[in-house]
Amino acid sequence: MRLETDPYLARYAARVTGMSASEIRALFAVASRPEIVSFAGGMPDTSALDLEAVEQVVAAVIRDSGAVALQYGGGQGRPELREQLVQVMRLQGVPAHPDELVVTVGGQQALELIASCFVDPGDVVLAEGPTYVGAIGALTSLQADVRHVPMDEAGMRVDLLEEQLQALEAEGRRAKYLYLIPNHQNPAGVSLSLERRRRVAELAERHDLLVVEDDPYGLLGFDGEVLPSLRSMIPERVIYVGTMSKLFAPGVRTGWIAAPAPVRDKLILLREAADLCPSNLTQMIVERWLQTQPWVEQIKRFRQLYAEKAGVMLDTMAAELPAEVHWTRPQGAFYVWLTVPAGIDTSDLLAKAIAHRVAYVPGRGFFADSSGGDHARLCFSFPSTDRIREGVVRLGELLNAELELVRAVYGEHAPQLRTRRGGRATGIGG
Amino acid sequence: MRLETDPYLARYAARVTGMSASEIRALFAVASRPEIVSFAGGMPDTSALDLEAVEQVVAAVIRDSGAVALQYGGGQGRPELREQLVQVMRLQGVPAHPDELVVTVGGQQALELIASCFVDPGDVVLAEGPTYVGAIGALTSLQADVRHVPMDEAGMRVDLLEEQLQALEAEGRRAKYLYLIPNHQNPAGVSLSLERRRRVAELAERHDLLVVEDDPYGLLGFDGEVLPSLRSMIPERVIYVGTMSKLFAPGVRTGWIAAPAPVRDKLILLREAADLCPSNLTQMIVERWLQTQPWVEQIKRFRQLYAEKAGVMLDTMAAELPAEVHWTRPQGAFYVWLTVPAGIDTSDLLAKAIAHRVAYVPGRGFFADSSGGDHARLCFSFPSTDRIREGVVRLGELLNAELELVRAVYGEHAPQLRTRRGGRATGIGG
Repeated sequence: MRLETDPYLARYAARVTGMSASEIRALFAVASRPEIVSFAGGMPDTSALDLEAVEQVVAAVIRDSGAVALQYGGGQGRPELREQLVQVMRLQGVPAHPDELVVTVGGQQALELIASCFVDPGDVVLAEGPTYVGAIGALTSLQADVRHVPMDEAGMRVDLLEEQLQALEAEGRRAKYLYLIPNHQNPAGVSLSLERRRRVAELAERHDLLVVEDDPYGLLGFDGEVLPSLRSMIPERVIYVGTMSKLFAPGVRTGWIAAPAPVRDKLILLREAADLCPSNLTQMIVERWLQTQPWVEQIKRFRQLYAEKAGVMLDTMAAELPAEVHWTRPQGAFYVWLTVPAGIDTSDLLAKAIAHRVAYVPGRGFFADSSGGDHARLCFSFPSTDRIREGVVRLGELLNAELELVRAVYGEHAPQLRTRRGGRATGIGG
Repeated sequence: MRLETDPYLARYAARVTGMSASEIRALFAVASRPEIVSFAGGMPDTSALDLEAVEQVVAAVIRDSGAVALQYGGGQGRPELREQLVQVMRLQGVPAHPDELVVTVGGQQALELIASCFVDPGDVVLAEGPTYVGAIGALTSLQADVRHVPMDEAGMRVDLLEEQLQALEAEGRRAKYLYLIPNHQNPAGVSLSLERRRRVAELAERHDLLVVEDDPYGLLGFDGEVLPSLRSMIPERVIYVGTMSKLFAPGVRTGWIAAPAPVRDKLILLREAADLCPSNLTQMIVERWLQTQPWVEQIKRFRQLYAEKAGVMLDTMAAELPAEVHWTRPQGAFYVWLTVPAGIDTSDLLAKAIAHRVAYVPGRGFFADSSGGDHARLCFSFPSTDRIREGVVRLGELLNAELELVRAVYGEHAPQLRTRRGGRATGIGG
């Protein structure tokens, strides 16, 4: 059994298109069909795992420690697993001690717990614009005032971060924290440059700023390069979030937070109120995977696979998409960030795209203020290379047709074609 | 490997004793030692599972559907699992349709999501007094105003529920919902009588009251008797919470909510913000367990095992505990609720108990206002019958010594011995 459909698709559609429940149901009925090429959900290609090895691991966990694996555990997560996760961080040069870690239900719970720990309604949280849709969900459900810092090809514009910090200080306010994904950012597909990392570290010191460093993709650079983490630069100011979802499998729902002791203790209490404890069973599966299997080799295999898929994606985009469309060129992980000309709104276009058997996430999903209508996230990690080619060809047909329509309605020089991007800081930000 | 220690112990101790972090650490170092008999954590006896069957189930899930099991899933939970869970509810006579269900990370996440869905700071939520410590945690972290309704041997005092509802109406206020555990209540170890269930249903209709029916133990009556659920009486007013933690294993972290469609949709959005989706892997393990294994027989085996343990517990208590101590007599599930004479505070006594190699949860943990110092919860589901006997003997020694001390300090007729229980509605409530 191979997963052919994308469980994210309906959810994204519901959030960013303003469709009614019945429209969404109709859309979902179509989107679930396997003939749709979905670039929507950020899903790793779990078929690249050695499933025989996984089967041996899960069977051995029950055989050797069934009664414990099936029992409740502690809220912080198993010490044995935390020791292994520290090894994963070490591979990337991120320092940590097992005591500092809290095991979570994937990276999403980590972000939700951190938000719950720090954010009261109205509090300012700074984040890249665009940023991870799940982080926005966690923050806005707590009524945070999310302020985006625009990005370019070298990641977050740190000069604009500084402006925002100064503006906040002038208002007598402070940001609760800066949330960022420095490596192969979701959704922009770019990384924060080394020089800018140093500047962020300096600004954090100068403005007494807490940083939440979300790092699901650090080990998935196509050439294996890893830039220094913020945690390695300013450990006492950084809460680090990791996940095994992209290094092993999302199905084990295993992420973690590395945080200073007082924050860690508060996070453990919050997690106990949220869901008591992580699953001993899935924790012990991850533990045993890391203890007994060639997990570093597996990460390399993922890396090569995604590099190949990215190559096919970018080559086909260059051949098929209209000249007026622009996109980022990822050096790792899963995502290409698309910018379409004014006159096209990617939220409005989604239903038409699905009818044309291709899907993506509209850009509005990645901004707290629902800007980003001229962007879309394309995720290439899950479909096969053949399906990627098919999907991009369809997207090209769709965008060419749409551009013709825009020109027919507004003409080449209609005001919104010229003014829409005016005042924008970058080619990536909303 | 058999779990000998109780992961709950330190957490409970921290919450209800007011000890410092270093004191807790010292206590925990002792409490983790296997010579302690712990009646603290509400842990099922997972060693009673057929572990060979579980091993086959988990291996088959990976073998037959590994790529799906290791992938992300939808926020509502797998339709196949929801169909199976409806069968579990049916065994108990609780009506539901798979579409109404949201799969959660155990019952705890269910309670947290429901609280997040309905409660704003200051909102009134009614609950039995005492009630489940995890429900209190979820509600108080949202700053709910939790008002307890006292209990007696027939469960919640519905006459006092009515008084509270009338008093709220007189204030021009309404309870967001009534939270209750009608079957083999945690921690009181009593069930709501049939007559009182009917009265609760009437009151809910009359006062337009939403009921959250938490039912982890309904199938664990020692004689197999199942009283009608509130959901079967007033389905449109009830949000029902179930869990596989006590019917299969806590380690799979699989619970669920059955709710009307508009509430269900809001719960799915909240759960996606909290942790994206439940684990496909553990969902498929539960699915396959219910599809291919004699799960009804397994529940009967649990029932017989817990009935035997309860018998040993109650017989030994009758023989060993001082006459001044009282307790409930459970007809199902895991718990005995202890009432000690005035002059003894079970929170203060816990460190001494652990030094005497026996542990329990102090009663204050089960009241939002931290009353309940004259109570303790004893959970007999996890220790072997030999260990139960040992533990109760130690508890008897401890309580006898403590009572002697109280008499020596205050005399038989000291004021606090007479007045402490004055004005209490019942022998169970705080």
